[in-house]
Amino acid sequence: MAKVTELKRNEDGIATVLGVLKQQFGDRFQTGDAICEQHGHTTTWLKNQSPDGVVFASSRDEVQAIVDICATHKVPVIPYGTGTSLEGHVNAPAGGISVDVTQMDQILAVHSDDLSCVVQPGVTREQLNTHLRDQGLFFPIDPGANASLGGMSATNASGTNAVRYGTMKDNVLALEAVMANGDVIRTAQRAKKSSAGYDLTRLMVGSEGTLGLITEITLKLQGIPEAISSARCTFPTVDAACQTVMQVIQFGIPVARIELLDAIQVKACNAYSKLDLPEEPLLLLEFHGSEASVLEQAEMFGEIAQEHGGGGYTSTTSTEERNKLWQARHDAYWATLQLRPGAAGISTDVCVPISRLADCVNAARARLDEEGFVSPIVGHVGDGNFHCLLLIDEQNADEMARAGAFVSWLNELAISMDGTCTGEHGIGQGKMPYLAKELGQSTVDVMGAIKTALDPHGIMNPGKVIAV
Amino acid sequence: MAKVTELKRNEDGIATVLGVLKQQFGDRFQTGDAICEQHGHTTTWLKNQSPDGVVFASSRDEVQAIVDICATHKVPVIPYGTGTSLEGHVNAPAGGISVDVTQMDQILAVHSDDLSCVVQPGVTREQLNTHLRDQGLFFPIDPGANASLGGMSATNASGTNAVRYGTMKDNVLALEAVMANGDVIRTAQRAKKSSAGYDLTRLMVGSEGTLGLITEITLKLQGIPEAISSARCTFPTVDAACQTVMQVIQFGIPVARIELLDAIQVKACNAYSKLDLPEEPLLLLEFHGSEASVLEQAEMFGEIAQEHGGGGYTSTTSTEERNKLWQARHDAYWATLQLRPGAAGISTDVCVPISRLADCVNAARARLDEEGFVSPIVGHVGDGNFHCLLLIDEQNADEMARAGAFVSWLNELAISMDGTCTGEHGIGQGKMPYLAKELGQSTVDVMGAIKTALDPHGIMNPGKVIAV
Repeated sequence: MAKVTELKRNEDGIATVLGVLKQQFGDRFQTGDAICEQHGHTTTWLKNQSPDGVVFASSRDEVQAIVDICATHKVPVIPYGTGTSLEGHVNAPAGGISVDVTQMDQILAVHSDDLSCVVQPGVTREQLNTHLRDQGLFFPIDPGANASLGGMSATNASGTNAVRYGTMKDNVLALEAVMANGDVIRTAQRAKKSSAGYDLTRLMVGSEGTLGLITEITLKLQGIPEAISSARCTFPTVDAACQTVMQVIQFGIPVARIELLDAIQVKACNAYSKLDLPEEPLLLLEFHGSEASVLEQAEMFGEIAQEHGGGGYTSTTSTEERNKLWQARHDAYWATLQLRPGAAGISTDVCVPISRLADCVNAARARLDEEGFVSPIVGHVGDGNFHCLLLIDEQNADEMARAGAFVSWLNELAISMDGTCTGEHGIGQGKMPYLAKELGQSTVDVMGAIKTALDPHGIMNPGKVIAV
Repeated sequence: MAKVTELKRNEDGIATVLGVLKQQFGDRFQTGDAICEQHGHTTTWLKNQSPDGVVFASSRDEVQAIVDICATHKVPVIPYGTGTSLEGHVNAPAGGISVDVTQMDQILAVHSDDLSCVVQPGVTREQLNTHLRDQGLFFPIDPGANASLGGMSATNASGTNAVRYGTMKDNVLALEAVMANGDVIRTAQRAKKSSAGYDLTRLMVGSEGTLGLITEITLKLQGIPEAISSARCTFPTVDAACQTVMQVIQFGIPVARIELLDAIQVKACNAYSKLDLPEEPLLLLEFHGSEASVLEQAEMFGEIAQEHGGGGYTSTTSTEERNKLWQARHDAYWATLQLRPGAAGISTDVCVPISRLADCVNAARARLDEEGFVSPIVGHVGDGNFHCLLLIDEQNADEMARAGAFVSWLNELAISMDGTCTGEHGIGQGKMPYLAKELGQSTVDVMGAIKTALDPHGIMNPGKVIAV
């Protein structure tokens, strides 16, 4: 299962680059084992493949200089934000240089009249939202982790609010990137729409550092809604919860969030976040709008939920209560890991058309139970996207093999339902075997041709997304 | 001004292809002057450059066969939908074969539970909406013309509803295309979101036939809102109307449409569509939502408009009245041409951040007046996008030169305001000189590298978007 691309190391090139970077960056260039390992090994279940050194870049010009040096010596360059990706995105299968952008954490401009802002890639989503709050604005995309906006752009992240506000792809207006040849490109201006040439913005978003390194991002913002209410509702079965979600989406209720936690997930969250939610399948919701509209949405939801046996429906406009609930939801990954201390967490990420959601979730639950895996199911079900988080003893070969077989089976099931093997985590190393199954070899060949055209020596985050 | 790329014709290749296509397609392959001219000359002000022949394709396999034949003999292939593009998109500067997809007009599937459908490229937006109406669904994107969905995808069209529902880029879930090497690719599955590899969907949308020929499109659909109301409001000046729009957007009122027509445009529409609107700057609006929400939106708009001197504010939920008004708006292009019979219409298409809208529109109006051009201003102002439609005597060299100078000046003004030279029409031939000014040569070089990688012999709609 943990098969990753084995790429050849360019030992001479790496040795030279290590010397040059040490000279140019001094203490901001580190080659210690611990720091290198930390920049390879992140939240992923894949084998750690450490870079040879880590540069803490502080500006676009520095990123450009690093890429130039690495390009000259044909050495891999791997961008690093907060290290919260899940499919081996920051591993260094052929060694090379990790470019840590956490020091590029400036919010360069907030254009409040235009509902947009410009940030450096190391700014995290929480940092941005704290900065925006006083201006009555927010940035809606929220993967569980407090990820960097550069990383979120690179993987096309989404999360709980995507059902209403879309994914990174829908919220990045433009970006600046350093390409493999050292050129700096700016993909678009700041106008809300444009038909000026190929959409390089959306090509770079989700390209996982394999085409260029993102050095600046222009984001759409939203006004903080006049009213926000959150709600929760339990269901007798996961199926009943999914049927409810399907109807909510089909009726066009503009929910801002609609998240499923199955009973095991609720149990984990109760323990980790000191809550006392009933340990049954649960939907967590949020409604945004005017006072009247929020009430109307909550009422419509309640009617649908009741038809499907929903119970204990409570809603609140208390910010404190709401934050506590969503913090628990965002901590679900960490909460789950506590269910089996020491185990590795393997997260799946399928996304299917909403009409197939219940079928897909039910099939996944049945097989998890059949195999005896400890694994909650949690997800952004309004988009048809859910995660199983399997807790596996990495030392147990049989367990690892069975987990691998489960992941393959689920990915292929989603693909057979006209869905995808990754709704938001990205391909990285872990999902590479599924890309051609999902889209066909001709489509992957087109991606390969683009990769080769823009990065002929294969130095940009090699061994991720596609093998070329 | 009417400078277009002069490309070399491959006479031998063209002669061979004409023979092969005649044999394979019989009467569905036409080489008559009139039909060829009609497939080059469309609504554009650019010089007609006719293809050498027109094939009426009826299936994906036929498109693939045509591309194969043309690729073998290195002959240009130019896709043709309804011919309503405005920047010379369907011209054939090096000759070649126009692939008319109007016979590929099947709606292949409507997945009402998933709010999506699958269509062939020759289906027009009106045809689709007529088909969907009984299922309570609609497809929101509406450029003025009853364009084909293939063409709308190729140019990343938008129109009046984009302020609420986005552009084609936001509404194409997946597409199938025949690439220059004859491969058929499918860019995505039907799930609502995906992080599986490079976003080829959005790369193809807006690529104007220069990377591949679209043969199938999966579109997002919307439920017909519970309530729709339309409204109109006049303003003492265009500036007052723009200031109103800016505030509406900044306040986050989710208008479905907010269109500006200046006094000249209103006059033209009155005459063409037999209306009696007051001939002053006008905003036309539409609100979608629940009964309560539509009322609330209309009220909030009314308050903002009043602050800016808006008058004669009337709203209606009558479908008939609404359709009449929007039909007039959609006919604005034709109405304007009647202001100076025999003149050519040159449409600009700049789009700026909303905070610069009034500045840009005011500057455009002042210069149009200074130069004495007959030109209304009309636009999708909620997105910061507006059009001047200059009526020019093509035989008058001085007028043509001055019009060209105006277009250049306006494009550069918008670019200087962090805007774009094309909000929705695309680059085609006419906007090619502005692409590098807008995005920089490095960015255009990346587009060029992609073009060359995917179409090494330059047969896909050559001489458009970028010169390679």
